[in-house]
Amino acid sequence: MAATVHPLDKGIGGLDAPCAPEEIAARGWNLFEEDLSLPAAVLSQPRLEHNLAWMQRFAAEYGVQLAPHGKTTMAPRLFARQLDAGAWGVTLATAQQVRAAYAHGVRRVLMANQLVGRRNMAIVAELLADPSFEFFCLVDSVEQVRQLAAFFGAAGQRVQVLIELGVQGGRTGVRDEAQWQAVLEALAQAQGTVKLAGVEVYEGVLKDEAVIRAFLQRAVEAVHALARAGRLERAPAVLSGAGSAWYDVVAEEFSKADIGVPLDVVLRPGCYLTHDVGAYRAAQTRIQASNPIARRMQSSLLPALQVWAYVQSVPEPELAIVALGKRDAAFDAGFPLPAAHFRPGSSAPAAVPEHWAITGMMDQHAYLKIAAGDDLRVGDMLAFDISHPCLTFDKWRQIPVIDDAGQVVDIVQTYF
Amino acid sequence: MAATVHPLDKGIGGLDAPCAPEEIAARGWNLFEEDLSLPAAVLSQPRLEHNLAWMQRFAAEYGVQLAPHGKTTMAPRLFARQLDAGAWGVTLATAQQVRAAYAHGVRRVLMANQLVGRRNMAIVAELLADPSFEFFCLVDSVEQVRQLAAFFGAAGQRVQVLIELGVQGGRTGVRDEAQWQAVLEALAQAQGTVKLAGVEVYEGVLKDEAVIRAFLQRAVEAVHALARAGRLERAPAVLSGAGSAWYDVVAEEFSKADIGVPLDVVLRPGCYLTHDVGAYRAAQTRIQASNPIARRMQSSLLPALQVWAYVQSVPEPELAIVALGKRDAAFDAGFPLPAAHFRPGSSAPAAVPEHWAITGMMDQHAYLKIAAGDDLRVGDMLAFDISHPCLTFDKWRQIPVIDDAGQVVDIVQTYF
Repeated sequence: MAATVHPLDKGIGGLDAPCAPEEIAARGWNLFEEDLSLPAAVLSQPRLEHNLAWMQRFAAEYGVQLAPHGKTTMAPRLFARQLDAGAWGVTLATAQQVRAAYAHGVRRVLMANQLVGRRNMAIVAELLADPSFEFFCLVDSVEQVRQLAAFFGAAGQRVQVLIELGVQGGRTGVRDEAQWQAVLEALAQAQGTVKLAGVEVYEGVLKDEAVIRAFLQRAVEAVHALARAGRLERAPAVLSGAGSAWYDVVAEEFSKADIGVPLDVVLRPGCYLTHDVGAYRAAQTRIQASNPIARRMQSSLLPALQVWAYVQSVPEPELAIVALGKRDAAFDAGFPLPAAHFRPGSSAPAAVPEHWAITGMMDQHAYLKIAAGDDLRVGDMLAFDISHPCLTFDKWRQIPVIDDAGQVVDIVQTYF
Repeated sequence: MAATVHPLDKGIGGLDAPCAPEEIAARGWNLFEEDLSLPAAVLSQPRLEHNLAWMQRFAAEYGVQLAPHGKTTMAPRLFARQLDAGAWGVTLATAQQVRAAYAHGVRRVLMANQLVGRRNMAIVAELLADPSFEFFCLVDSVEQVRQLAAFFGAAGQRVQVLIELGVQGGRTGVRDEAQWQAVLEALAQAQGTVKLAGVEVYEGVLKDEAVIRAFLQRAVEAVHALARAGRLERAPAVLSGAGSAWYDVVAEEFSKADIGVPLDVVLRPGCYLTHDVGAYRAAQTRIQASNPIARRMQSSLLPALQVWAYVQSVPEPELAIVALGKRDAAFDAGFPLPAAHFRPGSSAPAAVPEHWAITGMMDQHAYLKIAAGDDLRVGDMLAFDISHPCLTFDKWRQIPVIDDAGQVVDIVQTYF
């Protein structure tokens, strides 16, 4: 499936006809020459490279594998860069996402979610016909194991699963010993169709480090118990955890696991590639302060995703209206933060005063608080750093990749 | 630009290759036979028809024109139905949206927004080369009029504008007499390039009916003053207002306008087509209670957009996890509301207990509160009514249209 830049997509330059992404750099679009239709999301090429290398090195230092959560970007051109940098596979959340990744060459997917529903299972079954494709999904209930066994048994296929451990009050995952034993029993009955490869957790539903470490240790014990019982049907077995906020703690705890059989420890952060200036910056500040390897690396993740928009009105001395809305950037974990101010025709973007702040967003507009007399006018361009990359990526079908001079050097397509 | 259903899009049935939307009905997909990959957004064909006819009749009763706000759906197949039903044009918010509508045959667009930026103006300029295309945008500042005049003057084109009136503390729009006179003066200087066609308001930033009526009367007086001064360069002139919450009041106030020259009163509701069970239901309840024409019509708008998803886990007696997230439905104006429960293999969907409620959403998951002992299990399908259709539509590239039996009879593409 060849990716295409479609002339009607938002946030791009002028195109008369659909165009391959590989041809975009030659168009010569430049953000600061107003070649893009704003609002536009843009990725920083040097910062992407930095973050990609940073996280791969971090994982390598711990001797763990990376399966970056692809649901963050859903951009196969970025998946390819993650795999080229050394990722073990790609993590995804839904059958449709798995299909999109497969169609763009991804051949190992950890679907960190329960696979449910006839058509969703059919999507996976189609991909499993390719013997070069390795797939995992999660199970956490007897009913779900039975449904997988019924579908894949009828298809004459085997599906590989990880048991998900959860916590009381958390999201999915087995809560207690009784559920654990029931799922194990169901898996034993489904043997030959549902193949147990290991254990998975998502520690991101917890907030306290000590509680998270205890949960991770429970996961290590669980996979160890499966190894002792000879229940693990993949070698190496798989032990997987880590969202984008606690990957350091997961690396520490899981890399210590010694379960007597070969083990792939697989971390699944997704947001590191673009980072943000919200929850993930806060998490990274903790990591840089406390993790010895992060400290030794002497650099940190950098925000690599911005949304640019025009000032469309300055109707009151302390209010500017920016053509940027809930359709363009995440707003659920803090509003976008003004990061740069560029007046078309000027030589370079300038820093923005600290008092400029978005105070509200509508579908297509943002309210920017300014001070009377600030030099901001209609037609000025503003860059915004964002919180929550996942809910920013899904607003865009095309995201130009720019260098520090605003030149578009590449473009990525999303498959939401 | 032919619309396409792409096999990798989410929320659709199985496709081996891209397919024209006109061919989808023949595929025989049925929601209740689990032919769609859930989560999926679906539109109700009969309810769409009802809402389409309802609003067109409402406008006709007042003798006003409809230019439905297309930013809500960004679905040209729905624009076509709105135009076929009698709409005067389509309202849009950005240059990219205008281009997408034009590419699908829309030939009159009210861009209810300020047009700003070189590439955005270039998009409009390209379309204005077609003499059959009528376009309006808004102006509310001297600076913006100058920028339009500079760009379109250099292009040797004329661009048609409405002056936007605003309110203190509101969004865009001229606030006071001084701004109004300044914009008029700038328009006079730009004559020949920037053509004044009328006046526009967006009353949706206000909450109080009396204040809204006063604001609307200010708009009538403003367009009347322009008529008296011979400043209106289009016949009929245009007076436009109305989001989806106060269109009745706008119809009442604007239909009374007598400005001595022909006048197109243009209402711009966008959410009526699908309606919702949040803010727009609340607004419609007021309208049905107070508006004489709505009362006489003896029916109201109906929610026509639902999102279906699977239960993927029931890890605690009072908690189900649904495979539906912030990526799939609006969450900024109330969470989706459980509306129907279907167990695959059963004969028909059932109503859901009143105590089932979404209590939280993550990117790809929702937390559903249930009661211990409720008959809900993994693999069950749930329908959710939604609040805020705009931020639900933009989560989907394809939205199947179904009949009451769940049969997919059509499919619409979005261009976000």
